[in-house]
Amino acid sequence: MYDQITLKLNVDPFILGALKEDITSEDVSTNSVMPEACMGKVELICKQDGIICGLQVFKRVFELLDDTTVTELYCKDGDEVKAGQLMGVVTGDIRVLLSGERTALNYLQRMSGIATYTYKVAGLLAGSRIQLLDTRKTTPNNRIFEKYAVRVGGGHNHRYNLSDGVLLKDNHIGAAGGVKEAIRMAKEYAPFVRKIEVEVENLDMVKEAVEAGADIIMLDNMSDEMLKEAIGIIDGKAEIEVSGNVTAENIERLKNLGVDYISSGALTHSAPIMDISLKNLHRI
Amino acid sequence: MYDQITLKLNVDPFILGALKEDITSEDVSTNSVMPEACMGKVELICKQDGIICGLQVFKRVFELLDDTTVTELYCKDGDEVKAGQLMGVVTGDIRVLLSGERTALNYLQRMSGIATYTYKVAGLLAGSRIQLLDTRKTTPNNRIFEKYAVRVGGGHNHRYNLSDGVLLKDNHIGAAGGVKEAIRMAKEYAPFVRKIEVEVENLDMVKEAVEAGADIIMLDNMSDEMLKEAIGIIDGKAEIEVSGNVTAENIERLKNLGVDYISSGALTHSAPIMDISLKNLHRI
Amino acid sequence: MYDQITLKLNVDPFILGALKEDITSEDVSTNSVMPEACMGKVELICKQDGIICGLQVFKRVFELLDDTTVTELYCKDGDEVKAGQLMGVVTGDIRVLLSGERTALNYLQRMSGIATYTYKVAGLLAGSRIQLLDTRKTTPNNRIFEKYAVRVGGGHNHRYNLSDGVLLKDNHIGAAGGVKEAIRMAKEYAPFVRKIEVEVENLDMVKEAVEAGADIIMLDNMSDEMLKEAIGIIDGKAEIEVSGNVTAENIERLKNLGVDYISSGALTHSAPIMDISLKNLHRI
Amino acid sequence: MYDQITLKLNVDPFILGALKEDITSEDVSTNSVMPEACMGKVELICKQDGIICGLQVFKRVFELLDDTTVTELYCKDGDEVKAGQLMGVVTGDIRVLLSGERTALNYLQRMSGIATYTYKVAGLLAGSRIQLLDTRKTTPNNRIFEKYAVRVGGGHNHRYNLSDGVLLKDNHIGAAGGVKEAIRMAKEYAPFVRKIEVEVENLDMVKEAVEAGADIIMLDNMSDEMLKEAIGIIDGKAEIEVSGNVTAENIERLKNLGVDYISSGALTHSAPIMDISLKNLHRI
Amino acid sequence: MYDQITLKLNVDPFILGALKEDITSEDVSTNSVMPEACMGKVELICKQDGIICGLQVFKRVFELLDDTTVTELYCKDGDEVKAGQLMGVVTGDIRVLLSGERTALNYLQRMSGIATYTYKVAGLLAGSRIQLLDTRKTTPNNRIFEKYAVRVGGGHNHRYNLSDGVLLKDNHIGAAGGVKEAIRMAKEYAPFVRKIEVEVENLDMVKEAVEAGADIIMLDNMSDEMLKEAIGIIDGKAEIEVSGNVTAENIERLKNLGVDYISSGALTHSAPIMDISLKNLHRI
Amino acid sequence: MYDQITLKLNVDPFILGALKEDITSEDVSTNSVMPEACMGKVELICKQDGIICGLQVFKRVFELLDDTTVTELYCKDGDEVKAGQLMGVVTGDIRVLLSGERTALNYLQRMSGIATYTYKVAGLLAGSRIQLLDTRKTTPNNRIFEKYAVRVGGGHNHRYNLSDGVLLKDNHIGAAGGVKEAIRMAKEYAPFVRKIEVEVENLDMVKEAVEAGADIIMLDNMSDEMLKEAIGIIDGKAEIEVSGNVTAENIERLKNLGVDYISSGALTHSAPIMDISLKNLHRI
Repeated sequence: MYDQITLKLNVDPFILGALKEDITSEDVSTNSVMPEACMGKVELICKQDGIICGLQVFKRVFELLDDTTVTELYCKDGDEVKAGQLMGVVTGDIRVLLSGERTALNYLQRMSGIATYTYKVAGLLAGSRIQLLDTRKTTPNNRIFEKYAVRVGGGHNHRYNLSDGVLLKDNHIGAAGGVKEAIRMAKEYAPFVRKIEVEVENLDMVKEAVEAGADIIMLDNMSDEMLKEAIGIIDGKAEIEVSGNVTAENIERLKNLGVDYISSGALTHSAPIMDISLKNLHRI
Repeated sequence: MYDQITLKLNVDPFILGALKEDITSEDVSTNSVMPEACMGKVELICKQDGIICGLQVFKRVFELLDDTTVTELYCKDGDEVKAGQLMGVVTGDIRVLLSGERTALNYLQRMSGIATYTYKVAGLLAGSRIQLLDTRKTTPNNRIFEKYAVRVGGGHNHRYNLSDGVLLKDNHIGAAGGVKEAIRMAKEYAPFVRKIEVEVENLDMVKEAVEAGADIIMLDNMSDEMLKEAIGIIDGKAEIEVSGNVTAENIERLKNLGVDYISSGALTHSAPIMDISLKNLHRI
Repeated sequence: MYDQITLKLNVDPFILGALKEDITSEDVSTNSVMPEACMGKVELICKQDGIICGLQVFKRVFELLDDTTVTELYCKDGDEVKAGQLMGVVTGDIRVLLSGERTALNYLQRMSGIATYTYKVAGLLAGSRIQLLDTRKTTPNNRIFEKYAVRVGGGHNHRYNLSDGVLLKDNHIGAAGGVKEAIRMAKEYAPFVRKIEVEVENLDMVKEAVEAGADIIMLDNMSDEMLKEAIGIIDGKAEIEVSGNVTAENIERLKNLGVDYISSGALTHSAPIMDISLKNLHRI
Repeated sequence: MYDQITLKLNVDPFILGALKEDITSEDVSTNSVMPEACMGKVELICKQDGIICGLQVFKRVFELLDDTTVTELYCKDGDEVKAGQLMGVVTGDIRVLLSGERTALNYLQRMSGIATYTYKVAGLLAGSRIQLLDTRKTTPNNRIFEKYAVRVGGGHNHRYNLSDGVLLKDNHIGAAGGVKEAIRMAKEYAPFVRKIEVEVENLDMVKEAVEAGADIIMLDNMSDEMLKEAIGIIDGKAEIEVSGNVTAENIERLKNLGVDYISSGALTHSAPIMDISLKNLHRI
Repeated sequence: MYDQITLKLNVDPFILGALKEDITSEDVSTNSVMPEACMGKVELICKQDGIICGLQVFKRVFELLDDTTVTELYCKDGDEVKAGQLMGVVTGDIRVLLSGERTALNYLQRMSGIATYTYKVAGLLAGSRIQLLDTRKTTPNNRIFEKYAVRVGGGHNHRYNLSDGVLLKDNHIGAAGGVKEAIRMAKEYAPFVRKIEVEVENLDMVKEAVEAGADIIMLDNMSDEMLKEAIGIIDGKAEIEVSGNVTAENIERLKNLGVDYISSGALTHSAPIMDISLKNLHRI
Repeated sequence: MYDQITLKLNVDPFILGALKEDITSEDVSTNSVMPEACMGKVELICKQDGIICGLQVFKRVFELLDDTTVTELYCKDGDEVKAGQLMGVVTGDIRVLLSGERTALNYLQRMSGIATYTYKVAGLLAGSRIQLLDTRKTTPNNRIFEKYAVRVGGGHNHRYNLSDGVLLKDNHIGAAGGVKEAIRMAKEYAPFVRKIEVEVENLDMVKEAVEAGADIIMLDNMSDEMLKEAIGIIDGKAEIEVSGNVTAENIERLKNLGVDYISSGALTHSAPIMDISLKNLHRI
């Protein structure tokens, strides 16, 4: 769960934005037939097996519309759920249940999809000490939801954004005039609490990065053979991240190489949604 | 393309939000190594076959960061592109190219993914007069991008949100006390420029909807047989939309039933992204 | 009344804007003399006969300033009220009563003015099945209040804004190359839940509009004779709206022509306010 | 005209809000028939005699939508204009002309209505040295437009809001424990650049206000006789404002009493709009 | 204390901005070690002697993060406090106490610093009837806090900003063509509730200002001798403000000249902070 | 200088906020006497010796008010300037020069004050390899300005906020159950690009922190003797930061201990402003 502070300061504004996207003046259909508040209940039912994620956001959608809405939950983020499982019940003004349904589910389905996919990919690394990392390939204006879902699914977060982590890529290195110079400049400029990570593409760059004192070396799109050589060169002098179109289909080849981290954009940009619905709405 | 008004009033705020999500103080890596502006070029390369979509948004990301950035494009939204194809070149301050890259691609990849998937599904309806529709199952705070991508891919838009279309579902009908009463109340309450759509689940409801003068009847999750009967009952007296977990895999069974519209949430919630990258950044 | 969702998402921001317009730092007069909270009551008195409208907004102004303020109301939106009538009592911190008074009344007076005028005009159509419609000639940043007031007064709402309704005027028709082509293009482009309305100025355009399948035909600024001919041509094949400087003074001539809707900008742009005041503030 | 600073900081946000109120996603009608930009011209024609006001806001609406739009004006705020007069020409993308038309006219019509009515009322004071003042009875979120229009019409502005002026009413006086004490407290608390104004209802209060050193005394809803006595008591020791349902119909009785200011809420809450339209749009 | 209205409308937005400046995604340190809420207490201890100011803002920081946080205070704004004094106790979720600590103290330390310095300077004027005034030399986006702190310290506020007070400086006078003309233009243009203040630099300007009826004359950077002459010329016909690099070190020379106001930018731009800390956080 | 991206996304909103704080409706004084634009020049003069900082922000204030304003600068951020030195000339509409003056100087004076003080303190560390660090003790809503000024003055930045750096203090350690456990939890939870810093108060904690693999150890408020022992224990196995009421007066005792970083809240919370003014405004 998000702590209450993060929820209020940094999650609520996005949820409110999503609600305003869906309700620019009023919910015409609902208001046509329900001029008055009317209490009801609706059930939250899972329609696929997976890892549920986003229940707090789901609940928050209804609370932001009407803070008297009560969401009773029978599972928590990270639980394995089964198709057909009753995960919770929402009780409140039926108008609120109807108007918030789509936004609540849009969040829950996407977040659960990411958690489920991450759980699957992380499972393929079971038995190793490798941490599975996400990337910045998140849906615009949804990063705080998607990075959270990765954690719930058993992954770990890479830097949050361009301001809170240093990752020197080929163009940064080119601009600086070399790996060594780039690392020196970053150590001079960046807040000193940052680790300095360098993305390298060949063995010469690996050597330079080690010599220059990089904290983390990202081996990008290397062949298995080159990966092994690179890991040998680094030899524990820096942490090692491997990246490059990593998906559930191809991650296992990287499992036993001795790297520390594997990052995968697919966790956030290619996870299919998990089907979830609100059913059996009835008056009470 | 979005017209300039929509772009400024309703698209730019989301792009700026996405940029601020990624740059909360500054791009530390880039600023470490590039204290001064430095002109460069980078190529926009497609890495998969598909329908490209979102080029204007891609371009706008860089313009909002620095309005002197020039994006030259060799294709336009809706074009079929091939893996390896050079789609454009962005010229400007390399710092801008680096800082905007991820946000620009995050939009372009998702929008192209939706357009490509929609194109594929719409193609399965070729030869019929059926229009393929999207739903409100869009990613929160991305509806304006995703609905546009559906159109570019050859689909059509259902209502934009709860405020601009009337769709009476079972709960609305229950609240009103019946199909007929629900339609009457909606005609009385809703702005008169709205068509009144009713979602029905059985043949009795179909009959009532026809008698009550619904403009559109949505046949939800019906068997083929029931669909045929329903269509017979409606008999041209209302427009017909079919919905219910429609995907590329199962849409063809609906092609020759004589319906007007088929809606599919999968267009926006399950389209895989299209792989696209910025390559060969170099100083000029 | 607005439902709670509309109130929170789409009404509150305007009320808060109005309060900030009136209180950019603090209420200097009140704070000069009342350094501490002090409970009091004030009466809401009508000073003119009319249809009261906006009581929820009136109440909300005080709640947004201090959610412990209690507004007891003795009438509801749409009621006929008389000069001198006590309509309610507001109880709370006198500082809140003083600081919110002007904003609360500014809304209530304007909304009641519109409801009262609309009620009068709608009354002139009594006995017919014609619906009286508003337009987009509303005060900037007050549409949600003014369109609501029209409904309370017995009118109906035309489209809310440019995004949720299609109305093809002469310039759209000119751009498309003719009535038929404009309607075809709108049916192709607009979300399919929209009715297509066309504004016509002569009988040839009426004929084309009917043939092209317009859902609604607006007869704009036509003479009585031309109106009758146009209605004959349409002959039930489309809904008919009449517009053109319609006011209480001239609406009756349109009553028995057989049209479905009459729209009047005057409802929102020319309704005089209703005089209302807060009186007898006293400590308790 | 507003200076450029006021325009950018404090006027533009309201205009943008009004545009977003009218275009929540896109102008569907216009975009249906005009997929591409297309240059055109449209004429701004006055349909009633009056004092024109708001031309800069009118022009700004189009500039904010598209800064290449050119508005050529043949008159300026404060000019007397005649029905039928060509006041200006707007040249730009026809889509911009169509989408901005309603918002631009909604401002121009209201502002001109207020200027026209103010001009008429101020004219009734011609020959005296009395200044005609507005009040805070403005339309919510339109104060900056309406107070400006009063000035253009020949009136003067009372305080802008609760934060920038001190006006002690009966309840403030009651809270303080008397006129004298209220004035003392206000002089102690309020920024020293404020004049202290007191609203009085009887002659005893007038005397106390004079003795306590009020800068301005507002004589509220007094009979002619009482007004005369009050003015005699004040005898030049404070500025005098008269208020109380002042309109064009009843202002002349106050003209020769020897007061300094007359304030009228009607200037902003009851001025009828001035009819203005955009005509003869054509391609160029 | 701020009244509740000012707090909500005009103070809260700045506090929320400050919190978002410090927490752009989440408090990583706290969330690492405290996955769940955990109740605790922390003591607010003064570490320097001075005048405490900003306790309401301090408390509000925690309330905005979590409205169940309880802040018990043992002193109030304006009290003299001593190093080591226990001023209050905050009880709530330890995560809230940790995440809000820095922002709450940043406000409290600065506001107390200003109140303490103002108290000291105002004390140097004891025995005279001179009011000590602040200026607009406040920290950007902190004016509402700093002007309040000046009042708590025994000072008074000059105008709040450029919109709510008139102060004609040499450039205004030059633009108008002279002191007399500037005052005439200001009286004509400015809301009539404004006093007109003129800044003068020599005795000729003083004479002109008096003759033109200035309400307040600011004697800027004058020698003692010139001050005396100026005061003689004014002779009670206007209020007198003295300004020009006034600090605690040099204010006493101005005490017995017979002026009404002395303004000092140093109150807000040069007051050192007061050292305050939160200590002894412990679980309960 | 800020790069253009940081300026637009993260600096401009604060500057605009500051301008709106100072101009809530209009600059009444200026508009009274200057109804029309009028070109002029004004000189930027330093009135104290120091390190100038914030020239880009100074310039931006005027650009945001009117983008045709030209600011010619004769020095750049970080330059040593002398009392009386002409640092630049601003040319533009005199109304813009007058209305923006105070906000522009408020930023420039504070930023230069911090740079000057930082420069002085950093100078006391000359000859060592110690980096001088700032803290989060910045003025609310001014962090981006103050952290920049520290860099210009020769200091370095500690973490930007709670979201982009991990600093485990005693309460975090207590919550986790010990130094070792706190570090383990932080490594598990925090994005892996973060260094883990621990604040310690005694030698036992130092040992634990070293053993647990802390990246940075902050020695807080230790005596010289304890500092030496702690540094011996750490022995190069972690970076060392020293903190605790460090000012220009007491920093030199820390210079030769062999630590890596010294942090000082005084850099941002106690730097006196630098006196700077705009002089000799004249028409051109």
